[in-house]
Amino acid sequence: MGKIIALLTDFGLKDGYIAVMKGVIKSIAPNTDIIDITHDISPQNIDEAAYVLWTSYKYFPKSTIFVTVVDPGVGSNRKILMVKTKNYIFLAPDNGILKYIFAYQEVLKIYNLENKEYFLKNISNTFHGRDIFSPVAAYISKGIPLKNFGTETTPLTRPEYFLSLASVKNKSINGKILYIDRFGNIITNILIENNKYIDDIQYIEIGKTHVNHFYKYYSEARNSKIFGLVGSSNLLELAMRNQNAAKIYKVKIGTKIKVVLR
Amino acid sequence: MGKIIALLTDFGLKDGYIAVMKGVIKSIAPNTDIIDITHDISPQNIDEAAYVLWTSYKYFPKSTIFVTVVDPGVGSNRKILMVKTKNYIFLAPDNGILKYIFAYQEVLKIYNLENKEYFLKNISNTFHGRDIFSPVAAYISKGIPLKNFGTETTPLTRPEYFLSLASVKNKSINGKILYIDRFGNIITNILIENNKYIDDIQYIEIGKTHVNHFYKYYSEARNSKIFGLVGSSNLLELAMRNQNAAKIYKVKIGTKIKVVLR
Amino acid sequence: MGKIIALLTDFGLKDGYIAVMKGVIKSIAPNTDIIDITHDISPQNIDEAAYVLWTSYKYFPKSTIFVTVVDPGVGSNRKILMVKTKNYIFLAPDNGILKYIFAYQEVLKIYNLENKEYFLKNISNTFHGRDIFSPVAAYISKGIPLKNFGTETTPLTRPEYFLSLASVKNKSINGKILYIDRFGNIITNILIENNKYIDDIQYIEIGKTHVNHFYKYYSEARNSKIFGLVGSSNLLELAMRNQNAAKIYKVKIGTKIKVVLR
Repeated sequence: MGKIIALLTDFGLKDGYIAVMKGVIKSIAPNTDIIDITHDISPQNIDEAAYVLWTSYKYFPKSTIFVTVVDPGVGSNRKILMVKTKNYIFLAPDNGILKYIFAYQEVLKIYNLENKEYFLKNISNTFHGRDIFSPVAAYISKGIPLKNFGTETTPLTRPEYFLSLASVKNKSINGKILYIDRFGNIITNILIENNKYIDDIQYIEIGKTHVNHFYKYYSEARNSKIFGLVGSSNLLELAMRNQNAAKIYKVKIGTKIKVVLR
Repeated sequence: MGKIIALLTDFGLKDGYIAVMKGVIKSIAPNTDIIDITHDISPQNIDEAAYVLWTSYKYFPKSTIFVTVVDPGVGSNRKILMVKTKNYIFLAPDNGILKYIFAYQEVLKIYNLENKEYFLKNISNTFHGRDIFSPVAAYISKGIPLKNFGTETTPLTRPEYFLSLASVKNKSINGKILYIDRFGNIITNILIENNKYIDDIQYIEIGKTHVNHFYKYYSEARNSKIFGLVGSSNLLELAMRNQNAAKIYKVKIGTKIKVVLR
Repeated sequence: MGKIIALLTDFGLKDGYIAVMKGVIKSIAPNTDIIDITHDISPQNIDEAAYVLWTSYKYFPKSTIFVTVVDPGVGSNRKILMVKTKNYIFLAPDNGILKYIFAYQEVLKIYNLENKEYFLKNISNTFHGRDIFSPVAAYISKGIPLKNFGTETTPLTRPEYFLSLASVKNKSINGKILYIDRFGNIITNILIENNKYIDDIQYIEIGKTHVNHFYKYYSEARNSKIFGLVGSSNLLELAMRNQNAAKIYKVKIGTKIKVVLR
């Protein structure tokens, strides 16, 4: 079995765009193993893509090549980055998708994809996932040296860090909602490195609601009230048992929250 | 090509949870072939999961390992079962997902997953699909003996049987709706082992409607009336040609039906 | 790695139907590589299926076997075609899915699938994707000669051609909407072989709207007006930047459009 190429896009699965990318990859590198991270990122939503990439990449085998295409600037002169970290290679438009990777991974090299030798012959203005990302990923998986694909570059994308309860100096910390998952669980940008820190929280303010129940797992909640817990990526999360908290509380990605400590 | 691991969850494909499970599996067992059964089970809907598992498992190659995670009790002290049948291995929370497997497959051994040696090092309270199910499935696929993963156990899950027209002694039988598929076909829990038995049905009562047309295939219906047929898993099904019967008749999983014989 | 089998259906991913097909294929041909094109074709929508197949097939490796099942006539006496072209093999009901393949690929042989030796033993009336298409595709991938599966036939499906701006003799051409993608981009049946031909367009009439802005890529548009561009399959497309043009203009597949030249 060859290397893994992992795909993350906002292309959806309905239109066949992802199949086209896989066809291109398999035509160049038949032994590559392709894994879908997700293709249901909300259209053009770079923040969602950055979050899902961050929660998933570290569980993949070493040498996995991540192809992340949420690319509202496709066809313009935005750069396409090829980023080498200790364990992985990431391809992404230079628009912020890699902001958490830049924050939490040691980056060894960053290239701008330029060498058309590794692109498809006809490059459209609207589907670089097919014409550039896929063939480049396939050639990387075949062992072409990274320096062949372009020149080193300085990206526009800046690292973004989560907030840490451990480092709060005042009585409270202002955060925001990073992501809402399919269960309606509300995921914040407050990192809780150790489960016990949750005991330091007096309440979480979201809109006019004060959340002051905290549990370790969903079914521990005995009623239908919203509660806080530490999610599977160690981020502070708001949830309701067997209900969609995000819908009931009508919150969105970006909504501000406040954590008040004891 | 290695063994097959087949995944069935309610995690959806949007959030990257499934990709994380695949990353964990491939990190341990790179040659494993992973097939998605479905990840669109309605959140926490164990009955849907049990039905879809039952309709699909028997078409998989021998030695397939089924990983079924619809798990509202995640993090609690519910057991995680590892079930060995003649041809397959099933991993599932002890909450009913395996009720039809227990009814229709000869079960050879049932273990409770306990040995943390085969789990990820950090076990969250909310994502055992990643931390327990995936690594265990990967190690099973590599040939670790089943007894190494835990001790034999007696599950809470009881077998559930379909109803059989062949065994009806009265003039009628009361059933229920088991599942509604994407076409709006309404699938009941009445098993019709032989196509000819459908001739014994006088009508099917669903709400105030009496269904008394029966066809062999969808396009045989010449108008827009609801009709009965034997579905692809030999269960009695209600359908409409090129229309969504479940939406038009506003039925749900669990709705009672009655089959009246001639 | 064995041959590729590519699947295109309207079965959705929720109900496990696709997993069953993959289980059948892997049971017969374990080394086959299965790629999903899409399973979210609108139920029974042959035109959508034909379009998505046409945009994707040519990016797959030679010898790929395409299994396309949008099959409202399943169980009736409609034929199932096996079509050999120079590079590929296509399986499809004889209902129009292959209309663009017939128009744009040199067809070498067309067979009617008849030989039950290569079907599953029990053939349902409602799920030939499982009982016929999947096992036949698996046996093809193992090298069984095509003539073993049935006899040569003349299909009912007629080729359908796109309209070409290059061949317009009058001042205008009447086209239609072929497809709407997940971004709400509106794809027409007007083929624009060369990007420069778009300069010949004065405006596009869709309902009461005259579209007279044209761009090369989406983010080139500087406001929220609808515009024309050449899409990634060289078809004339109507789009809005970061908005769903199809929803805003309430258009559907089949809606007429008119292109007026300078």
